[in-house]
Amino acid sequence: MSENNANQEPSETVLFDSAALKLDCGVTLDTLELAYRTYGTLNDDKTNAILICHALTGDQYPAGENPLTGKPGWWTQIVGPGRIIDTDKYFVICSNVLGGCGGSTGPQSDNPDGSGPYGLNFPVITIADMVRAQNLLIDHFGIESLFCVIGGSMGGMQVLEWAAAHGERVFSAVPIATSARHSSQNIAFHEVGRQAILADPEWHSGAYYAQKAHPRKGLAVARMAAHITYLSEAALQRKFGRNLQDRESITYGFDADFQIESYLRHQGMSFVERFDANSYLYITRAMDYFDIAAENGGNLAAAFTNSATRFCVMSFTSDWLFPTAESVNLVRALNAAGANVSFVEIESDKGHDAFLLDEPEMHATLNGFLKSAAKARGLTNDAGGDDD
Amino acid sequence: MSENNANQEPSETVLFDSAALKLDCGVTLDTLELAYRTYGTLNDDKTNAILICHALTGDQYPAGENPLTGKPGWWTQIVGPGRIIDTDKYFVICSNVLGGCGGSTGPQSDNPDGSGPYGLNFPVITIADMVRAQNLLIDHFGIESLFCVIGGSMGGMQVLEWAAAHGERVFSAVPIATSARHSSQNIAFHEVGRQAILADPEWHSGAYYAQKAHPRKGLAVARMAAHITYLSEAALQRKFGRNLQDRESITYGFDADFQIESYLRHQGMSFVERFDANSYLYITRAMDYFDIAAENGGNLAAAFTNSATRFCVMSFTSDWLFPTAESVNLVRALNAAGANVSFVEIESDKGHDAFLLDEPEMHATLNGFLKSAAKARGLTNDAGGDDD
Repeated sequence: MSENNANQEPSETVLFDSAALKLDCGVTLDTLELAYRTYGTLNDDKTNAILICHALTGDQYPAGENPLTGKPGWWTQIVGPGRIIDTDKYFVICSNVLGGCGGSTGPQSDNPDGSGPYGLNFPVITIADMVRAQNLLIDHFGIESLFCVIGGSMGGMQVLEWAAAHGERVFSAVPIATSARHSSQNIAFHEVGRQAILADPEWHSGAYYAQKAHPRKGLAVARMAAHITYLSEAALQRKFGRNLQDRESITYGFDADFQIESYLRHQGMSFVERFDANSYLYITRAMDYFDIAAENGGNLAAAFTNSATRFCVMSFTSDWLFPTAESVNLVRALNAAGANVSFVEIESDKGHDAFLLDEPEMHATLNGFLKSAAKARGLTNDAGGDDD
Repeated sequence: MSENNANQEPSETVLFDSAALKLDCGVTLDTLELAYRTYGTLNDDKTNAILICHALTGDQYPAGENPLTGKPGWWTQIVGPGRIIDTDKYFVICSNVLGGCGGSTGPQSDNPDGSGPYGLNFPVITIADMVRAQNLLIDHFGIESLFCVIGGSMGGMQVLEWAAAHGERVFSAVPIATSARHSSQNIAFHEVGRQAILADPEWHSGAYYAQKAHPRKGLAVARMAAHITYLSEAALQRKFGRNLQDRESITYGFDADFQIESYLRHQGMSFVERFDANSYLYITRAMDYFDIAAENGGNLAAAFTNSATRFCVMSFTSDWLFPTAESVNLVRALNAAGANVSFVEIESDKGHDAFLLDEPEMHATLNGFLKSAAKARGLTNDAGGDDD
């Protein structure tokens, strides 16, 4: 999958300091580090930048090869040379979110007070805080206005926050499989995951770094519960059904008799190798707190008044974590605000994770939207004639 | 809620011994205790008995007052004097399932080998084993044929197992919000719950009784995850939405800011007071293993060939744990087997737990079905003239 040597480089880090970021909770982060990866080249007018926002457990490596895992990036389906988000045309930026564990400042970072890693002393952050941090990064590149901000799930929340709070910097926005507010059921699932982590004695009230511990079991349970919500009942039935795992018959025991059990256990165990438990607490909390309407007196449309951004909203029929009704609610508000919005509900049985998978209708929709937006932005000439 | 003094008595226990029960796993339980509760009077012909089968975390107290909690039984909506399952007309039996923790033999019972409580040495049981145990209880009462076997969720699985394996003893059967096989997604959610219990150091590999310990945190997490699946997204949004719990604004922390979090935590904490963690492991496993078609060469209809049982199948529109598609699958098989079956999908936004709640359409359907079946059974005269 090494399409481009540049893709194999590790991400870069930019350090902002001296009262860089005032958070929603009231705390100011005096030092802020953001780990990011770019692909492609920023044009002279700085008009061809696409910001990709990652989901809860994502990272800054959507394209090429992930230098940490050696595996393809999480969105190579659509990001790369000659792909829909064409890194030969666009300058693609993706940064690890504030609070994450991929190099950006988060609970595992050292507290500037010299006491070691923050742990639970890290301030609780919001999606708006993540986006404020990304704004600093865009300033750092000298980009006035992003051609597009795109992302699925929590990435879509960041897209909506960009459009609502910094719309003048967003030419086009593609929120996929997301919502303008986290639902009660989604808060509930997050709370289960957090309680699983908090129940693990290896969590040590969040101060496990000094003990060289990690609440692996609790984090694995959290991941297993979450992972079910990323799929659909139909996809689980199709992929695993009641198939047994490497055995002819049930064993009358608590081993992983069923493939689905084995699969879930693997998901849990591999997740804890790459993710920090405290980051999981903080990022799920940021999602729970997300409610754009509430920030606008309960009026979602008011968040997008006079928006000049072109929106492309997509949802998936079998996504029960961020069901189509959430996107419909968003689209109604955008329409009420007089925004330029197209909306497609894509038929898929793959559940919420469909946005990461090979979904031709999503890809065709995105391709058409970006081509049209590029033309409106005057980017077609930059594209080297490939404007079919 | 004390409608009847008799209802306040604790359950009785019957002890079967000398190779009482050969289990599917091959083990024979030499002693078997079943805790049960009856309501009403068995008629002289012994034709008016209704067996109520409880769900995963249910007990033998569907009616009157639960003597342990002082609260109403779990199905007082429909069971009691003058109610749909009229204890003035019918002799109602409900027993704590094999493997349970309400007085019937289970993992917390003493191992006859003198080593103390079974713990994980208790053999893994199946729904068929639970029903075999209930058969012994029905023999104990000298009842040849039950007028009706009824239950929701895992109770409905027992109903189906009764009809498939002991159909000659079942005049009518009412499986509600259930399935003839546990789905991949449902196995997945059970596995999450089990892993949460197994991750708790207080579980002590199942031998926590001797340590006077209990994996409370793990069991609470299991219950929280399961509880979400018993409700519906719409019901959660309607009941809790994003309402805050006893506060004006979010606290930027990990307290239960949202009502849904507080509610879930309460569900978890109160559950561990009344339920045994090992029982939770064993009963969820029994549900996972349930697959009537598999026991009949993959042909669900074959399980019901020549069935003379009258079936009333009910599902709920918002039940995503046991969705209507599962009931439709069952009804198709029953039709293919030439069985007498009526099926109603009930419009409700209350999710899986709707079967326990005030659902007028379910109650009306059940009432009509039971009246008609009672007439066919020749029970109307026993009913004291109340056959409207």
